[in-house]
Amino acid sequence: MEKIPYKIYLNESEMPTAWYNVRSDMKKKPAPLLNPGTHQPMGADELAPVFCEELIRQELDNDTPYFQIPDEILSFYKMYRPSPLVRAYCLEEKLQTPAKIYYKFEGNNTSGSHKLNSAIAQAYYAKKQGLKGVTTETGAGQWGTALSMACAYLGLDCKVYMVKVSYEQKPFRREVMRTYGASVTPSPSMETEVGRRILAAHPGTTGSLGCAISEAVEAATTREGYRYVLGSVLNQVLLHQSIIGLETKTALDKYGIKPDMIIGCAGGGSNLGGLISPFMGEKLRGEADYRIIAVEPASCPSFTRGRFAYDFCDTGMVCPLAKMYTLGADFIPAPNHAGGLRYHGMSPILSELYDEGLMEAVSVPQTKVFEAAEQFARTEGILPAPESAHAIRVAIDEAMRCKETGEEKTIVFGLTGTGYFDMVAYEKFHDGKMDDYIPTDEDLEVGFSKLPKVD
Amino acid sequence: MEKIPYKIYLNESEMPTAWYNVRSDMKKKPAPLLNPGTHQPMGADELAPVFCEELIRQELDNDTPYFQIPDEILSFYKMYRPSPLVRAYCLEEKLQTPAKIYYKFEGNNTSGSHKLNSAIAQAYYAKKQGLKGVTTETGAGQWGTALSMACAYLGLDCKVYMVKVSYEQKPFRREVMRTYGASVTPSPSMETEVGRRILAAHPGTTGSLGCAISEAVEAATTREGYRYVLGSVLNQVLLHQSIIGLETKTALDKYGIKPDMIIGCAGGGSNLGGLISPFMGEKLRGEADYRIIAVEPASCPSFTRGRFAYDFCDTGMVCPLAKMYTLGADFIPAPNHAGGLRYHGMSPILSELYDEGLMEAVSVPQTKVFEAAEQFARTEGILPAPESAHAIRVAIDEAMRCKETGEEKTIVFGLTGTGYFDMVAYEKFHDGKMDDYIPTDEDLEVGFSKLPKVD
Repeated sequence: MEKIPYKIYLNESEMPTAWYNVRSDMKKKPAPLLNPGTHQPMGADELAPVFCEELIRQELDNDTPYFQIPDEILSFYKMYRPSPLVRAYCLEEKLQTPAKIYYKFEGNNTSGSHKLNSAIAQAYYAKKQGLKGVTTETGAGQWGTALSMACAYLGLDCKVYMVKVSYEQKPFRREVMRTYGASVTPSPSMETEVGRRILAAHPGTTGSLGCAISEAVEAATTREGYRYVLGSVLNQVLLHQSIIGLETKTALDKYGIKPDMIIGCAGGGSNLGGLISPFMGEKLRGEADYRIIAVEPASCPSFTRGRFAYDFCDTGMVCPLAKMYTLGADFIPAPNHAGGLRYHGMSPILSELYDEGLMEAVSVPQTKVFEAAEQFARTEGILPAPESAHAIRVAIDEAMRCKETGEEKTIVFGLTGTGYFDMVAYEKFHDGKMDDYIPTDEDLEVGFSKLPKVD
Repeated sequence: MEKIPYKIYLNESEMPTAWYNVRSDMKKKPAPLLNPGTHQPMGADELAPVFCEELIRQELDNDTPYFQIPDEILSFYKMYRPSPLVRAYCLEEKLQTPAKIYYKFEGNNTSGSHKLNSAIAQAYYAKKQGLKGVTTETGAGQWGTALSMACAYLGLDCKVYMVKVSYEQKPFRREVMRTYGASVTPSPSMETEVGRRILAAHPGTTGSLGCAISEAVEAATTREGYRYVLGSVLNQVLLHQSIIGLETKTALDKYGIKPDMIIGCAGGGSNLGGLISPFMGEKLRGEADYRIIAVEPASCPSFTRGRFAYDFCDTGMVCPLAKMYTLGADFIPAPNHAGGLRYHGMSPILSELYDEGLMEAVSVPQTKVFEAAEQFARTEGILPAPESAHAIRVAIDEAMRCKETGEEKTIVFGLTGTGYFDMVAYEKFHDGKMDDYIPTDEDLEVGFSKLPKVD
């Protein structure tokens, strides 16, 4: 048996040429988006003022198993993909674990994360539709940066509403986006009606993804030639992100490796959904079995303490209703440093799979996450994003469990990105100033009490 | 003929297992280091209080063509190498040039640059010698970060003196180094005698690599179990960095590509020296010919306006004298944003090669460099370090020349690193607040007037 290299890179000829739609293998499909006024399922026509046409088609299609990736997107992918599947030899050695640890590293591009995989797809379809530009929100700034890069490449205008706490904690992210020609506004802002309304109700709020989404949707629908694009949650995003899982599976198959468990951080579910797609497909078809573990921050525990219910995707309640695990659109999480995981809801696809018991979820406190991040940096070299470090935390915990039991399990986790713009958070951690806020049941009741009543 | 992929990654089995010593092919060897007091060549014994033993051996050996890379270093290399050789298809398309452009991208690791290649080697030999730790200086922070990573991996103590202007412009660099367990001091500092002396003579100075070197050397020689390590200039560093050129050459040979010109930015010469090594070897042996172009900032023009003379490597004049192109150890460059290129001297190896007409040099003003950086980011996706963008500037200029003449030249340049920690500089550029300071002849005379008199 050939020794597994430190990094498995596919050749360009081995790269996937189609995205995989996990919904096609789900017996119970994710619930449809509902009109927030009528509570009726929304069709393509109703979604058209907000989203690009082709993306709506992808959003609503629960049956087509594969979507061909257009050549222009494949070319862009080749600039930064395939991403490496890394064997964490150094971490295994450090932990003295019999477990075999692999991670799919999506941080080797300037956006610093996997977000670029969907950004280029969404920008491409906007361009193809003849639009002038797109609007979006960004939390940690990774999605905004990714979209800026994609728009710069295609010559599209890009308007980003950035969650205020991240805008302030990550001033340099704004400059990266400017380098790619985007305009960036801290959210909530006075630029939109919904922003003004949120500021009036919550003066001094540090914002949330939910608020920023509302503002971006309003900005898209009130100007000519613009549509809104979203970096997570939606079915279309998980479709594009399936490239992560497809590459991972091809690389593993090449060396005959069968993972026992697959671990990913979950904010809106884009990375986890993409990473697990082909594995979940096998599981749904009864061809293989895997433990699949979602990791979320204890401060924003959508899966582990949320409700599976129809809810607004945004705080401003202008978006469609989605059936998902949610803390309530009104829930504004504590300023956790993993901005990308501070979302009240969760992908409807993952929510359905979780509800059916096809995957697990675990929540972890912030300081434990940064301990894992630092340990990982010092052994594997890569400085992880706080979001990604959630997966590292649980991968290390599982590897240590193997050490106790002596089991040689194969662990695959998603390392979604790098933490170069998160040094304020690392500084707090180094200085012992990081807290582990966990919402009380009463805190959560506030969000649950505002859930819309849907029959 | 197989289509050249966007990124050529070598397999681990194709990675070089020995460093190449370009001095072995030089008919005229670089001049020896001299004792600053006696002006006599320094032997291993004299250097031993400052440098590690094995590194001194490498430093003084002008004849051995190859040095085997120890297994432990090869393992570390495999965590982040091979680095990709990228075909800049998107940039070529954007420029509409018949030129074929390739770049060797060294930024895909947390230090964000090629510096890690020598950091791990130097830390390894320090560890092997049973030392407690190492001291060093850092400009832009890339070398300091790289050394911190290497020391964390090997469990060595790491003390970094960081040029004050970079310490202030790049606060997050300090946190990255802390994540890897290093201690970081802004230089000049009050911690060392030489620091106090420089501060007295130049109150309010923003520092320079030369100052920081003096402090690090003093810190190493005045404490038990420490040695000083340096990220550039020295022969040993160019030896380790030959890994860049060797990988580049292997990748080019694999596809039968022969470059017409090789371009790299030059501060102390570590990247350029490493990149060109095997190509220069062929040139020295008369087996092939290449144009080799060093690019330096107009604000710190060691090659293009300096003197080829013996000089101090540091401002504090505690280091050996090296014969090199220099602006004088007393020259304190304007606060250019490419901190890594703000060094008064240049690698003695490259200085000798340049003096013999075996390579060219060109200087470029700062704003032109950032224009190239932004254009590159928008087309190739990667946000370059300001240092690296010097090479991009000249690569684009040469490609545009090909467009005029219709020549299909093959251009290879070194993309040494990423600019994630340089957003203050990008912000100044975006806001039109960047200046193009170029020293007058009178400014340079100040540095030249202090050159030591060596017969």
